[in-house]
Amino acid sequence: MVGYAFMGAAHSQGWRTVGRVFDLPLTPRLAAVCGRDGQAVRAAADRLGWAAAETDWRALIARDDVDLVDVCTPGDSHAEIAIAALEAGKHVLCEKPLANSVEEAQAMTEAAERAERRGQVAMTGFNYRRVPAIALARRMIAEGRLGTLRHVRVSYLQDWLVDPSFPLTWRLQKPYAGSGALGDLGAHAVDLAQFLAGEPVAGVSALTETFVRERPLLAGASSGLSAAGGPGGGESGLGQVTVDDAALFTGRFASGALASFEATRFATGRKNALKVELNGERGSLAFDLERLNELFFHDHTEPGVSAGFRRILVTEPDHPYLEAWWPPGHGLGYEHTFAHQAHDLVRAIAEGTAPAPSFADGLQVQRVLAAVEESAAKNSVYTPVPV
Amino acid sequence: MVGYAFMGAAHSQGWRTVGRVFDLPLTPRLAAVCGRDGQAVRAAADRLGWAAAETDWRALIARDDVDLVDVCTPGDSHAEIAIAALEAGKHVLCEKPLANSVEEAQAMTEAAERAERRGQVAMTGFNYRRVPAIALARRMIAEGRLGTLRHVRVSYLQDWLVDPSFPLTWRLQKPYAGSGALGDLGAHAVDLAQFLAGEPVAGVSALTETFVRERPLLAGASSGLSAAGGPGGGESGLGQVTVDDAALFTGRFASGALASFEATRFATGRKNALKVELNGERGSLAFDLERLNELFFHDHTEPGVSAGFRRILVTEPDHPYLEAWWPPGHGLGYEHTFAHQAHDLVRAIAEGTAPAPSFADGLQVQRVLAAVEESAAKNSVYTPVPV
Amino acid sequence: MVGYAFMGAAHSQGWRTVGRVFDLPLTPRLAAVCGRDGQAVRAAADRLGWAAAETDWRALIARDDVDLVDVCTPGDSHAEIAIAALEAGKHVLCEKPLANSVEEAQAMTEAAERAERRGQVAMTGFNYRRVPAIALARRMIAEGRLGTLRHVRVSYLQDWLVDPSFPLTWRLQKPYAGSGALGDLGAHAVDLAQFLAGEPVAGVSALTETFVRERPLLAGASSGLSAAGGPGGGESGLGQVTVDDAALFTGRFASGALASFEATRFATGRKNALKVELNGERGSLAFDLERLNELFFHDHTEPGVSAGFRRILVTEPDHPYLEAWWPPGHGLGYEHTFAHQAHDLVRAIAEGTAPAPSFADGLQVQRVLAAVEESAAKNSVYTPVPV
Amino acid sequence: MVGYAFMGAAHSQGWRTVGRVFDLPLTPRLAAVCGRDGQAVRAAADRLGWAAAETDWRALIARDDVDLVDVCTPGDSHAEIAIAALEAGKHVLCEKPLANSVEEAQAMTEAAERAERRGQVAMTGFNYRRVPAIALARRMIAEGRLGTLRHVRVSYLQDWLVDPSFPLTWRLQKPYAGSGALGDLGAHAVDLAQFLAGEPVAGVSALTETFVRERPLLAGASSGLSAAGGPGGGESGLGQVTVDDAALFTGRFASGALASFEATRFATGRKNALKVELNGERGSLAFDLERLNELFFHDHTEPGVSAGFRRILVTEPDHPYLEAWWPPGHGLGYEHTFAHQAHDLVRAIAEGTAPAPSFADGLQVQRVLAAVEESAAKNSVYTPVPV
Repeated sequence: MVGYAFMGAAHSQGWRTVGRVFDLPLTPRLAAVCGRDGQAVRAAADRLGWAAAETDWRALIARDDVDLVDVCTPGDSHAEIAIAALEAGKHVLCEKPLANSVEEAQAMTEAAERAERRGQVAMTGFNYRRVPAIALARRMIAEGRLGTLRHVRVSYLQDWLVDPSFPLTWRLQKPYAGSGALGDLGAHAVDLAQFLAGEPVAGVSALTETFVRERPLLAGASSGLSAAGGPGGGESGLGQVTVDDAALFTGRFASGALASFEATRFATGRKNALKVELNGERGSLAFDLERLNELFFHDHTEPGVSAGFRRILVTEPDHPYLEAWWPPGHGLGYEHTFAHQAHDLVRAIAEGTAPAPSFADGLQVQRVLAAVEESAAKNSVYTPVPV
Repeated sequence: MVGYAFMGAAHSQGWRTVGRVFDLPLTPRLAAVCGRDGQAVRAAADRLGWAAAETDWRALIARDDVDLVDVCTPGDSHAEIAIAALEAGKHVLCEKPLANSVEEAQAMTEAAERAERRGQVAMTGFNYRRVPAIALARRMIAEGRLGTLRHVRVSYLQDWLVDPSFPLTWRLQKPYAGSGALGDLGAHAVDLAQFLAGEPVAGVSALTETFVRERPLLAGASSGLSAAGGPGGGESGLGQVTVDDAALFTGRFASGALASFEATRFATGRKNALKVELNGERGSLAFDLERLNELFFHDHTEPGVSAGFRRILVTEPDHPYLEAWWPPGHGLGYEHTFAHQAHDLVRAIAEGTAPAPSFADGLQVQRVLAAVEESAAKNSVYTPVPV
Repeated sequence: MVGYAFMGAAHSQGWRTVGRVFDLPLTPRLAAVCGRDGQAVRAAADRLGWAAAETDWRALIARDDVDLVDVCTPGDSHAEIAIAALEAGKHVLCEKPLANSVEEAQAMTEAAERAERRGQVAMTGFNYRRVPAIALARRMIAEGRLGTLRHVRVSYLQDWLVDPSFPLTWRLQKPYAGSGALGDLGAHAVDLAQFLAGEPVAGVSALTETFVRERPLLAGASSGLSAAGGPGGGESGLGQVTVDDAALFTGRFASGALASFEATRFATGRKNALKVELNGERGSLAFDLERLNELFFHDHTEPGVSAGFRRILVTEPDHPYLEAWWPPGHGLGYEHTFAHQAHDLVRAIAEGTAPAPSFADGLQVQRVLAAVEESAAKNSVYTPVPV
Repeated sequence: MVGYAFMGAAHSQGWRTVGRVFDLPLTPRLAAVCGRDGQAVRAAADRLGWAAAETDWRALIARDDVDLVDVCTPGDSHAEIAIAALEAGKHVLCEKPLANSVEEAQAMTEAAERAERRGQVAMTGFNYRRVPAIALARRMIAEGRLGTLRHVRVSYLQDWLVDPSFPLTWRLQKPYAGSGALGDLGAHAVDLAQFLAGEPVAGVSALTETFVRERPLLAGASSGLSAAGGPGGGESGLGQVTVDDAALFTGRFASGALASFEATRFATGRKNALKVELNGERGSLAFDLERLNELFFHDHTEPGVSAGFRRILVTEPDHPYLEAWWPPGHGLGYEHTFAHQAHDLVRAIAEGTAPAPSFADGLQVQRVLAAVEESAAKNSVYTPVPV
């Protein structure tokens, strides 16, 4: 694994847990973790349960005891590391967004396709596909429970930037993060929309905004979880926020369904509210990540007199991933998405199948994000997304 | 009152009730109701409590015992009736949307301004401003409880057109209805956004769609409540739907806040879900018309350890309009918005003050709707709204 | 109508509205209202829409233009007025609880049975049976949607006595109110449990408590709505609270189902939370009066993978009472229960059928309340309820 | 650890995770797990991450590399194992209910007190005290946010016995389980009530019921998670259910607050609904285990105009246990209660402090359960609980 901040900790918990809960054809071993600060990475290895620590990701990739490289760094280094790992014959799991640009994502996808022909697999870390309620939603849609889709609505609302004194972390700087709420939150929203609808977004019309344009520079170095600072700290005073604080966009699917997206870090009081709703001719589904064990389903084929959105508590043994967990009603949490991701990836490696979401899926999300930025720059004009 | 279908029935209930519950400076009398079908309008007068019935709205306007004309017809006749009533010296309450075009709304507003100088009042029937929770929300925003606004999000979701065999009523024909979900539902959404934010929408970027383009012609004549047919029935076969089924648009306020709107009649399982959320630097508010006695408020000035969206049950005596109603917890319903509207209008007449929303407010909503249609026709390009 | 405080105002709104909304075989006229204070009752008659005012209920009963007497006084006068009205040949609607003792309720029931043989009807005003969601729940249970019942859980939580400086109104004095939360709130809870389960409570085990035993005496006379004072005001200082503040009881139905009840005015933050849940072998229902347009239904015959409590928005035209009201999603309020009660009573009178709940039903509730008090006095021992 | 079924798996996950997330003064090592079936226990050790396997709990206790014994067996063996472990100088964590009788719990408590004088610790596994929302609730109550308590309401609703063909597992047999819903669910309910209120239940009045009195015998041996069978399988046909299916009881605290309890496995559609509500003079709290990341708080000291139950998403860094986990809004699940339990126990061992809940706390719960059974056997008469 490369990187050991918030995502690294979450992935580690997934890797440590998956084999204790699921029956797996292969047993994952936490061979080595990599970071630039030797002392910090050794402490992280001990804490998170990795057998060894490296300070150069090239050394990590060169290790014989590493079969799979899990890339948990900021987006600006995804392409270089993931492509090198694939070229070195490793399987790769890469955090989302796949890259900071379509070009990088394109190169990564090509590398993945070449690697696939050599029997390697590559997966993009859209972990929310592994929330059991989301997996169940996808299964129900694939079964036709919603019929022809009319509306797909996804908003991802957080509020950690409301305070203008929150510092200028790497997530607020374009060179490291690529974009702001768009790439961080909007990427999840777009991936879920495409995953659930079963088709790509065909075009978008977008607005983006940066509400707070200057923020205090971080005094120290990179550290910690959510507010981890990027390189270049040490100065005092204010620095420019060079990414969006919020992105709103509408879109169309080729099937004719309409889509509505919102990603923001300024929705005061909303902590991690990834809300999804899909309306089809035969029914509707609704989900909110702040209540991740629940899926709401309206079955429009029922008599209206007793129809209504039902709250499915997604903890039954025949719900996705749940056969391995606790009895009904004993809910899971955020971190379990990483165990499920690990489960699916390990099975794909063992079975020689292509895991989803692939790098191509990650690339397709990246194309939507690029179209959003293009539309926003062109007065919101409707901008088709190439496939 | 002109018209006695759904809106006429609702307004009548408001007029009958207001003086029984509130202390009013003037006592409304239900003098006469008007409709084209003599037998039907007499039956409606008896049923709804009007003293007389007329079949020609010009005759209604000419009556000496009529001081106020309440226009509850489809949008295509609003301008003619309202202007004539104002010119005849009557006060006017006109249902929303104010008109089917900006030009009509402009003419109506000018007539209202002339009439105002003669001591008459004119009001647009955006009754949802009179939901106590909405009135409370406005009061809290005006008091600064939200601080600088960042996001205003309004969706109005219904599902009565999901079934493609639903007939081609007047609401689905442009000559009568002007537009579809946009004018019917979007008008409420835009009015609430502007009312709550306290400023007009500055520009929009929009998509509209008609999912079902042909529907069965209505066999009979106009009747009933929600699905009342328009003129021209009698034929069989299919006819063209000439209005939108759904409209999605994003926008900006001059203050810099972003806005997100959705109006649809295809959100399966959503019956009357007018949902509003506003996020500001100091707090947030959320509302859903399907739970109209509740307002959710997050106070961001509180310590995070005990902060969260609180459910204010808007039934306390110091909540707007509630001093006249039942003890706490004994909720109101949809129809009470019309009693509150009547209350505010009667007081304005008695006190000689200008009621809100004025015809100018209705015109401003109309300008937003026109900008939405223009943007949708121009590939969603951002389209400023004149003030 | 006798009495014109909170209940009188609510009943008046029901009587005024019912014929404007429903098709009725008879048209109710609001002939006369009665109260002891001549000036106040005349003002109330004007305000509430009654044609005449009386200051002696015997005079009211003697009027030729009165066919139905609606008793809205405190419980201590129910028996005398209702029996006299029945003996005078009038139909009677009597507010709940039917009386302050089983003996009074027994006498009233006997008078009602004698009157019934003369073609009169008598009804107890358990208005919550007329919440559409409750009526729908009863219909679903009668259809067998829940199967064999296992649990019936009813709590009625309010908080208006939490403040110890709230004054000693008539509702807190045993001579006027009979009991406290038990008779006021518990009576509704017991009636709903018996109505929904379709059988009487067989026995109870109870605790009651008075948390605040002394309260300020009311300075003035009886008036107003929720906190209307009783006779004997004028003094200063503190007086004894002689009724319960809260009553908790468990019980059994003859069928074997268990029941759990709670009635309190000390549930801080709960304003009018009448919550009902029934669990049966085939399904469950849940309801909360603070969201009275919603009924939650779990259908246990569905596959577990997609089962869950669904929120039925009880506003569809085929829901009870809804055929006469607004389109789906346009909710009703507390007061509409009184219009529905009036509707059912008027139809019963016109059709010569016995309305429910009868005085016998009111008596049966009274027997449960008496058993609760007996059990509470006898160390909570299980106390059978005679039928 | 002794036992490796549902509770064993959950405890193992807690032990494996705690040191990876929290800073601990001691590092737990998973030395050995014990079960009667040698092959099965070795498989469990591999799966769950234990270094060794034992088939005799006495051998486990005798191991030098074991400092702490975690007892996860059915209740009938708790006393023997826990006392032996304490006598052998080990620290002990014992699953709830502490024992199947007051006598056993008394003996265990005495053993724990003797051991404590030797520097050992003993803890009862009421893991729900470690739900962050519950820990926060306790903190708020201790700070006086609720003022004088009036009502404590706890219900624990499940539905896994609704189907009469569900087999006769050990949990339905008195010799193994002690009692049914009462000991399994009611024990949690009573512990939480006492923990949150900060005082013991003073007396109870109770009903218990067994709805389905015969169930199919289990064909095979003990195994698996929720429906694990007890000894004595192999026969066919039906066997007697010898425990309660549901227990309802009311109670009093010495402070005068009233308590209401319900424990059932027949609440159709409720999967793991441990619901808690406390109402005090200054505020109220509400919690539902099916939404375990949320705590609802009503602050009655606020102006009524903007008061209401707020939803605190208990995922902030200053919430209990949360400083070690994910960013705000990234919720935890059921299993994390076991990591928190391990955290508190390890710290108590390291610091030489007495952990809570102690065996004495477990004994006090047992006394309440015994009083419930006594009251139920004596016609629900109010039965004091000794302290």
